[in-house]
Amino acid sequence: MDNTEITIKTDKIYDGKILSLKVDTVELPNKKYSKREIIEHSAAVSIVAITDNDEILMVKQYRKAIEKEIYEVPAGLIEIGELPKEAALRELREETGYIASNIEYLSEFYTSPGFCTEKIHVFFASGLKLDEQDLDLDEFIELELVKFEDVLKMLDRCEINDAKTMASILYYKEFRRKNNE
Amino acid sequence: MDNTEITIKTDKIYDGKILSLKVDTVELPNKKYSKREIIEHSAAVSIVAITDNDEILMVKQYRKAIEKEIYEVPAGLIEIGELPKEAALRELREETGYIASNIEYLSEFYTSPGFCTEKIHVFFASGLKLDEQDLDLDEFIELELVKFEDVLKMLDRCEINDAKTMASILYYKEFRRKNNE
Repeated sequence: MDNTEITIKTDKIYDGKILSLKVDTVELPNKKYSKREIIEHSAAVSIVAITDNDEILMVKQYRKAIEKEIYEVPAGLIEIGELPKEAALRELREETGYIASNIEYLSEFYTSPGFCTEKIHVFFASGLKLDEQDLDLDEFIELELVKFEDVLKMLDRCEINDAKTMASILYYKEFRRKNNE
Repeated sequence: MDNTEITIKTDKIYDGKILSLKVDTVELPNKKYSKREIIEHSAAVSIVAITDNDEILMVKQYRKAIEKEIYEVPAGLIEIGELPKEAALRELREETGYIASNIEYLSEFYTSPGFCTEKIHVFFASGLKLDEQDLDLDEFIELELVKFEDVLKMLDRCEINDAKTMASILYYKEFRRKNNE
């Protein structure tokens, strides 16, 4: 069964710094029309970076949308002309100050496919060496090195509440289990 | 360190059917101003529902935002005056036609805390009995019952690309492992 929705009309509502909003009028499989509100957001990367001491680089950041500080893995937007892997290495250095000698693709996912185009590519980084943090002017990020076993405890206690961080860490856990088999 | 961003001004840009957009002018910890584009989206639920034959109820749905069909676990918005658990039972029945005699809270997370308020409460449902599907007029959803072990294989092969589905299933896997220990 083909459930593709055909775009009849696109209304551009807003074109901003990190996102845009459009409302598409679509033709449904039953030929009726409906509206789809869609947030256009650049693709992004997230990085599970692990030190030689089995610590994960976690960043603590105030997020205005949810009005609180939360733990996340380093992440950021892929710039024009940049490969996901290059963006991962750049964001890791900018947000944490660490350079990685090894980086591997783990997976990718959509954060909210019901209304948002955002796709996140997940990477695993190791062989870390401390260089210099280089935050955007409106970024205030605290770095914490957390033992991998303690990150898993944080997940269990629901202290990690960011979907990309949960998915990234659980993917890394699977990757690690397979490599140890 | 307190990194709270104080709201100086809110500009309402759009107020729609499933989401709203506002742009907040905020005062940063260093006293400078910045803009935050924020999508306001209702809280939602996702449900990992498992049959007596160890099959997960998966829904396949065309998503206009990403212009393709993807596999997801059943999910939907929490209505006004509704408890998350009630929303989970309702959405499960509407999207799949199944009624659950057992429902348990697993976890919760934000899908995109960098710009969106959406929070998803994850539930696990069992004791399933087939009743009747009751989709919204603009919903076209195909139900598939997939063996739990095959869902894990789909995850491994990156055939599941929806963050809430990945996080929900991996949480359920942990829950199951603990219950079997």
